Amino acid sequence: MRLTLIVITLFSATIEATLPLWPLPRHLKSGSSTLWMARDVKFSYLSKSNLQNFVGWFWDQVQFPHFESTGDGRHTPAAKRNLAHRAFERMQKRVFEQNLVPSKFNPRGLSFEPSYNVTSALFVKSVDIIEVSSLVHEAIADDIADEAYTIDVNPAGNCRIQVVTIQGAIYALETFAQLFFAHSYFPDVVYLPFAPINIVDGPRFRHRGLNLDISRNQFTSEDVMRTIEAMSSSKFNKLHLHAIDSQSWPIEVPALPKLAREGAYEPVQVLSVTDLKEIQKFGSVRGIEVYLEIDMPGHTTSIGKAYPNLITAPNEPKWQDYALEPPSGQLRLNSSDVYEFVTTLLRDLLPRLEPYTSLFHLGGDELNKNAYNLDPTVNSSSKEVLRPLVQSFVNHAIKSTARYGFTPLLWEEMVLDWNLTLPKNTIIQTWRSTSSLSDVVFRGHKALFGSNSHWYLDCGHGVFLDPADPSRPSSDPMLHPPYEDYCSPYKNWRQVYSYDPLAGMPTSSQDLVIGGEMHLWSELTDSVTLDGMLWPRAAAAAEVMWRGSGARPTEDTTRRLAFLRERLVARDIAAGMVTMEWCLRNQGGCVI
Amino acid sequence: MRLTLIVITLFSATIEATLPLWPLPRHLKSGSSTLWMARDVKFSYLSKSNLQNFVGWFWDQVQFPHFESTGDGRHTPAAKRNLAHRAFERMQKRVFEQNLVPSKFNPRGLSFEPSYNVTSALFVKSVDIIEVSSLVHEAIADDIADEAYTIDVNPAGNCRIQVVTIQGAIYALETFAQLFFAHSYFPDVVYLPFAPINIVDGPRFRHRGLNLDISRNQFTSEDVMRTIEAMSSSKFNKLHLHAIDSQSWPIEVPALPKLAREGAYEPVQVLSVTDLKEIQKFGSVRGIEVYLEIDMPGHTTSIGKAYPNLITAPNEPKWQDYALEPPSGQLRLNSSDVYEFVTTLLRDLLPRLEPYTSLFHLGGDELNKNAYNLDPTVNSSSKEVLRPLVQSFVNHAIKSTARYGFTPLLWEEMVLDWNLTLPKNTIIQTWRSTSSLSDVVFRGHKALFGSNSHWYLDCGHGVFLDPADPSRPSSDPMLHPPYEDYCSPYKNWRQVYSYDPLAGMPTSSQDLVIGGEMHLWSELTDSVTLDGMLWPRAAAAAEVMWRGSGARPTEDTTRRLAFLRERLVARDIAAGMVTMEWCLRNQGGCVI
Repeated sequence: MRLTLIVITLFSATIEATLPLWPLPRHLKSGSSTLWMARDVKFSYLSKSNLQNFVGWFWDQVQFPHFESTGDGRHTPAAKRNLAHRAFERMQKRVFEQNLVPSKFNPRGLSFEPSYNVTSALFVKSVDIIEVSSLVHEAIADDIADEAYTIDVNPAGNCRIQVVTIQGAIYALETFAQLFFAHSYFPDVVYLPFAPINIVDGPRFRHRGLNLDISRNQFTSEDVMRTIEAMSSSKFNKLHLHAIDSQSWPIEVPALPKLAREGAYEPVQVLSVTDLKEIQKFGSVRGIEVYLEIDMPGHTTSIGKAYPNLITAPNEPKWQDYALEPPSGQLRLNSSDVYEFVTTLLRDLLPRLEPYTSLFHLGGDELNKNAYNLDPTVNSSSKEVLRPLVQSFVNHAIKSTARYGFTPLLWEEMVLDWNLTLPKNTIIQTWRSTSSLSDVVFRGHKALFGSNSHWYLDCGHGVFLDPADPSRPSSDPMLHPPYEDYCSPYKNWRQVYSYDPLAGMPTSSQDLVIGGEMHLWSELTDSVTLDGMLWPRAAAAAEVMWRGSGARPTEDTTRRLAFLRERLVARDIAAGMVTMEWCLRNQGGCVI
Repeated sequence: MRLTLIVITLFSATIEATLPLWPLPRHLKSGSSTLWMARDVKFSYLSKSNLQNFVGWFWDQVQFPHFESTGDGRHTPAAKRNLAHRAFERMQKRVFEQNLVPSKFNPRGLSFEPSYNVTSALFVKSVDIIEVSSLVHEAIADDIADEAYTIDVNPAGNCRIQVVTIQGAIYALETFAQLFFAHSYFPDVVYLPFAPINIVDGPRFRHRGLNLDISRNQFTSEDVMRTIEAMSSSKFNKLHLHAIDSQSWPIEVPALPKLAREGAYEPVQVLSVTDLKEIQKFGSVRGIEVYLEIDMPGHTTSIGKAYPNLITAPNEPKWQDYALEPPSGQLRLNSSDVYEFVTTLLRDLLPRLEPYTSLFHLGGDELNKNAYNLDPTVNSSSKEVLRPLVQSFVNHAIKSTARYGFTPLLWEEMVLDWNLTLPKNTIIQTWRSTSSLSDVVFRGHKALFGSNSHWYLDCGHGVFLDPADPSRPSSDPMLHPPYEDYCSPYKNWRQVYSYDPLAGMPTSSQDLVIGGEMHLWSELTDSVTLDGMLWPRAAAAAEVMWRGSGARPTEDTTRRLAFLRERLVARDIAAGMVTMEWCLRNQGGCVI
């Protein structure tokens, strides 16, 4: 018995502390000294474009004009000051007001907190952010070094952060905030138990997105902003709003006011012009570019509420013949009214979106051919007949985006199923399988990865359809016990984390893969359940996109993600669990 | 085209309105007149034991002493007044402050609300609850007619509710509250669009429970009370608190103060004597008996924090050999210290619990035989050696419950795996399969049903264990993609609803089945995620237990459950979704 105890003690002594960072930086060295930080820490931002050194926290409280970004990193000095100020404010709020005492990560009763003595404690003296022309490090790819940063916390308490752009500074302060814990007895100070610290970090992929469907059920602009706030914790940089679908049209379009008036579930669902602008601003100061998808020509039935003449096969009773889910209905393809509608719509939307994004998603998934049998001007479901019509429609839509300087995105079907010819700058978003990604880049297109076997957050909660006659056999197994949905099972966070987007792809093709997105289709998600559907699973995807590859999770992964989860909960984001509390308190205890 | 439109219109006209009731009453007739109710509606309760008629709402606001129930329906007149008063208050709160405008259940923009004209509207004149000696109706089984009720709402606006006991009155007012909707323009009135109404209702099973594990992760007493509040909506009548387990001991026991002090994750987790009493009181006025399980002799490692000498095989590094999940450790079986511990524990607990419940669960599941190889006084894992020790231990525990007038419950293993001889009043709780239930009643025991294939709410969120070396093959498939847990997939609400507990059981055996329970084991659930894990799925189980059998769900089921979900959300219970909003708004539109 005594031997066993000794072995356990020795084992405990060799357990390494988990660094509470998510995503894990690309390069990291840490020590084991404790460094404290007080609320009056000095903060400075030395901009390379404007060599005035401005010092923070007690600086002028004037509201700077909102930062307007085109995503290219060119910002005015005022915009930089504003962004740096806000990023620093958020870091301060997180560490002093929304931080956590990591009691759940330590054995019960064990005094895990460092002792604090104000006279002898070593304090953070300053946080200096310095813009440099370039950051060169083996961990950082050249082509996205503009998003990179370094953090050096020296033993004396000087914190030096180097960045190339303000975007890097936003990431750096996210990381910096995660290094500190709250203390249960001293609310005015926080501590970092891993000093000195050296971090060199930058993303593997430029496009690290979350696709949020806000049309199947109702969401508020607060929901979207809360999601952006959570996304910023794990360094997402794109929020793709799947803004409309067949079920509802919740976006105000002043040039086509009937769209939302008739197409939204109810007026309270509608995101007004102002709401959308506020959402984009909210994202821009958190390093997140918010862009819209207007899915076309499929998934558009809700347009028919306002403009019935634009839609073929609307609300067919046998919707299964014309759509994958109710209601059926798609934009007509050779109608000048439809072309004019698209022109008007994009002329209204794009200039409004432009200050904050240069991306616009034109959709293009799951186009149903049968629906055009019911359009008397087409009267065919033949691909040969339809393909030129689809090509012409997409040409028209892309031309409209080009007019306003936008880069178009399309779903993979437009290339893989319809074989369209598209401008080289078009970004193709894949979702069906890993081979889709290879196929798209093989054709020379820039591509986003995604996976319905790993990164579909809506799976596994059951089918939403009802059987007409439950006593009679139905051809559809989803309508029988156990009533599983099309992409069951639920993708747990480990499954999300183990997705390796570039697995098996030749290095030569990888340059065209600019990033990926995680998807939340919201047939069974609304305001109430949003947080738990997204978190912590979306964060697991964020680390894959940041670091560049999936991995089989270890206990260290579990613990780091659990730190992030508890930090999200401290910010009133109702994230799901990562593991049982006992496993966090007993490091090594749930490893087999 | 015109023909199609006509067909749709005709079809729409024949769609029947869904009655927004959950669980569905056993017998129900309704009309289509609208009846309004104002806040000053008169309420009376005519008690058969005390023939004073007392009139409500503006009655005395004195707080009656808390109702103390032994579950047998014998209450003092004061207790009845108190219960009736509180049930009426809750009904009033729900219909006037927490009610819903059913816009989500109607096509957008369609004026679905009845027009209100205060001079011509027909109002509820009075709500009279009358205690009667018996309620006889073909829909109501004699043996549980004491929980039955009738509701008659006549065309003139008189509402007569008949009950046998106050428990029936609590259910009746729950049903009554669900009949009313809020109006978007007139906050001071609510309306019932289905008058006249005739309901005869009562449960099929006497025991309709939810088993909530509060030891694997942290929950607060507010969480438990919020759960009770939600449970009362769907007429649950038992809350089984799985109070302790190997991971933590969160219950204060004054006679053994070290148990919670050493065994809880942290002091804030502990339910004090007062907390527990408040929880039970909170349940009793909502018709819910709160009883405790102290799982023994397995699942008890947390006792070892305070009393290491009582536990064999505590915290073995190779826990897989001694337990199904970490940490290993069980009560020793032939230790006089253990017997004394059980005596002291139950002498402390049971008298405190007694005013509100006559049930006590002694556990008995998943006893690991190997653990006794490490107990030098047993030194065996042979069933032959262990069986008499288990029998003797259980005899001792049951004797302690009998001393305080409690009915003991045990998990099925004690009968089916260990073949113990048990007193006839012991209730055996099954959980592994439908055949377990048959086997238990075949042996002459009263039994509770349950099912890990249908009614395990924790399934499908992924394994919580971590692989020691993710790159090496492990014999355990759970440690590889897709990292599914032992009882995956997730049990969606339709799967829950389709569980038919008595399927295939001869009628002659059914009398011994007194009810069932739904289970939430909380390895991956805590305060933050509790509501979404329970609701609406627990409600689906509640209707099965109320009506007596599972069924394949139809659109009517979906709509009724969605009404309940929206009512829960209106009361700040973060319930999950039932279906997509479009399906609710377009009745018949998601049926295939």
